[in-house]
Amino acid sequence: MSKKKTEGGITYPKGFRATGLYSGVKKNGKPDMALIVSDADCVAAGVFTTNQVKAPAVRLSQRRVRGAGLRAIVVNSGNANACNGEQGERDALAISEKLSLHLGCDTKKILLASTGVIGRPLDMEKIVTALPRLVASATREGHEDCARGIMTTDTRSKSAQAEGIVDGKTVRVGGIAKGVGMIHPQMATLLVFLTTDAAVEKEALRLILSQVSDRTFNALTVDGDTSTNDTAIILANGQAGNLPVAKNRESYRELFSLVLSVCESLRDQLIRDGEGVTKVIRIIVGGARTKNDARKVAQSIARSLLVKTAFFGEDVNWGRIMVAVGNSGVRVYEERIDIFMGEVALVHRGVGLGTLQEEKALEVMKKKEITLRVMLGIGPMEAEYWTTDLSVDYVRINAGYKGRT
Amino acid sequence: MSKKKTEGGITYPKGFRATGLYSGVKKNGKPDMALIVSDADCVAAGVFTTNQVKAPAVRLSQRRVRGAGLRAIVVNSGNANACNGEQGERDALAISEKLSLHLGCDTKKILLASTGVIGRPLDMEKIVTALPRLVASATREGHEDCARGIMTTDTRSKSAQAEGIVDGKTVRVGGIAKGVGMIHPQMATLLVFLTTDAAVEKEALRLILSQVSDRTFNALTVDGDTSTNDTAIILANGQAGNLPVAKNRESYRELFSLVLSVCESLRDQLIRDGEGVTKVIRIIVGGARTKNDARKVAQSIARSLLVKTAFFGEDVNWGRIMVAVGNSGVRVYEERIDIFMGEVALVHRGVGLGTLQEEKALEVMKKKEITLRVMLGIGPMEAEYWTTDLSVDYVRINAGYKGRT
Repeated sequence: MSKKKTEGGITYPKGFRATGLYSGVKKNGKPDMALIVSDADCVAAGVFTTNQVKAPAVRLSQRRVRGAGLRAIVVNSGNANACNGEQGERDALAISEKLSLHLGCDTKKILLASTGVIGRPLDMEKIVTALPRLVASATREGHEDCARGIMTTDTRSKSAQAEGIVDGKTVRVGGIAKGVGMIHPQMATLLVFLTTDAAVEKEALRLILSQVSDRTFNALTVDGDTSTNDTAIILANGQAGNLPVAKNRESYRELFSLVLSVCESLRDQLIRDGEGVTKVIRIIVGGARTKNDARKVAQSIARSLLVKTAFFGEDVNWGRIMVAVGNSGVRVYEERIDIFMGEVALVHRGVGLGTLQEEKALEVMKKKEITLRVMLGIGPMEAEYWTTDLSVDYVRINAGYKGRT
Repeated sequence: MSKKKTEGGITYPKGFRATGLYSGVKKNGKPDMALIVSDADCVAAGVFTTNQVKAPAVRLSQRRVRGAGLRAIVVNSGNANACNGEQGERDALAISEKLSLHLGCDTKKILLASTGVIGRPLDMEKIVTALPRLVASATREGHEDCARGIMTTDTRSKSAQAEGIVDGKTVRVGGIAKGVGMIHPQMATLLVFLTTDAAVEKEALRLILSQVSDRTFNALTVDGDTSTNDTAIILANGQAGNLPVAKNRESYRELFSLVLSVCESLRDQLIRDGEGVTKVIRIIVGGARTKNDARKVAQSIARSLLVKTAFFGEDVNWGRIMVAVGNSGVRVYEERIDIFMGEVALVHRGVGLGTLQEEKALEVMKKKEITLRVMLGIGPMEAEYWTTDLSVDYVRINAGYKGRT
């Protein structure tokens, strides 16, 4: 139903321009600013960090995304501008005010995002000087520069797009993302920007972004921390000419599928680029009483350091999986639990199936992408969660982060 | 008030004998069984894992500790005997039955504990064969053998004792502990055994163990996992001749202090021997509305991988501490938070105090034992929590655990 293009990214939908450049904030000379701009007013929706310590950019975008006629997203990836007190608030406001002059639109139509080290004052001179260059360089071809402009310790830019029919019209969705460490449910040091040329009612767009986030970005963990700056925003400019997508129309499902396919691709790119990641593990927990129970058990496995290090060491230590299941807070029955590594049955009714099965499971664990399935034997519900192994390199990278930027 | 002896451990109180030996279960030839036995009937109390997946030894001891006249604790450290189905249950029962014949006491007077790899059947022949040797070798001098017999990946045995006056009589308390990985609140792969010659009412003993555990073993974390086998047990044989300690007597406070001092020493020994630990961090969270709030914030900091790796890397990245505070689930106000590394103020009212202070804080972080203080500026309550750094060696050790036993 949806067709994936090999390129296009954030400017794949009609009427969007983008760019990224180096303003001088990052010490390593890599791009540190990005701009996404729509030629027409947009309906917007956002999902933001649940951390109580929030960067000014997050608070500002949270307020403004509720308004109408949004036009642009400006991103600074050299400095999180978090924990900078009132000066941080003033700086965030000043960026959007100065940008609005160059774009010729109301300052409230501009959304902000920032990422980087916490607690360092923004170098406003460099950022303000870069704004006219940002606006001048935003083009239909700028998607890859934009994807690079939002990166921090990412080793690859992350970009995806999809095209499909919505309400009989061709509709396009594009997206970029960044985030490698601190990736965790509830939007953790994750920036995701999505664009679409679909026409869509605000409430429907909000619901689509929220449901898609729960199934993708909020169902993955690298290190369990939730940052001060996590932001996912979608802009819809209506250029495709469809009848506005609404909750109770068939077109809702059509647009939902397109946004989901872009976000699944971004999720896969994000987790594969997790800090020090050598393995990606898809955890499926089934047989739960409720979907929420299944999710809690999957999350408990996904966050266990002992499970994550066992995957890194290719150690078929299913006892650690049992420990994580028992620690999830969900009522479980040891004697009903089945565990499968890939297609290999490891545990049946709470008891290990022996060394022959463990040897077969070891072959599965040697792969780079592994599916772990845990069946609770209680009810019909299932949930999926994505995690990574915990490697020696994860610790090395995170022990010296500040020195490396 | 309490006098610490340099040795004596678990047999320091009157009327207790102990031992440890090699039964043949561990592949590395190290001691894998231990026995603590009292010459007289004991009042007992226990604190056990909150993991829903529990080893048969835990379930059995949980039941029996409620009874009267306890006499012995037998420990197997070569195999957790967890996730072994009904066979595991039968094996645990059989060990206590056979031991009761050698000890000449009712089987219900024997408590069990086990630790080691999960999901491997117990080698019952070796264990049963070792039981008469265990009983024969239990002596007043056997405390160090006993402390060694419960070790798994510990690099050092852990033992402590204290003596003081309770109700005008000299009372002694002794203890041993094991546990290096999976150390986390709610008794995680932690075995703690305590003895005292005090006379004490059952309810008072239960309360003392529970309160002391909350202030020591339940306020430390290495990796955040809670095992299937965690057990803390105290036996009191009344040989000191005091009037039984009760909740409303002055002697309650006296005995409480002695047990606390032994457990604080064991806690310090445990955390210093954490897997791959290079630094021990004492986290004090103050200015909270309630003690529970303070504890939750301290726990959130203690469990953050980004905080733990920053300590390993000696990186004064206080932003990660702010992130952990904001993620704790407790209502906090960014603009009221103060952070101190040792005596060095790092953050005042949510804002960093600059590079000069960070340089001073770096000197504190270079030490092996660090106090981190976070003041929330909300209320009068405070809590303490102990954690460790997360090192490259932690990952190395845990990636290959099974292969190393």
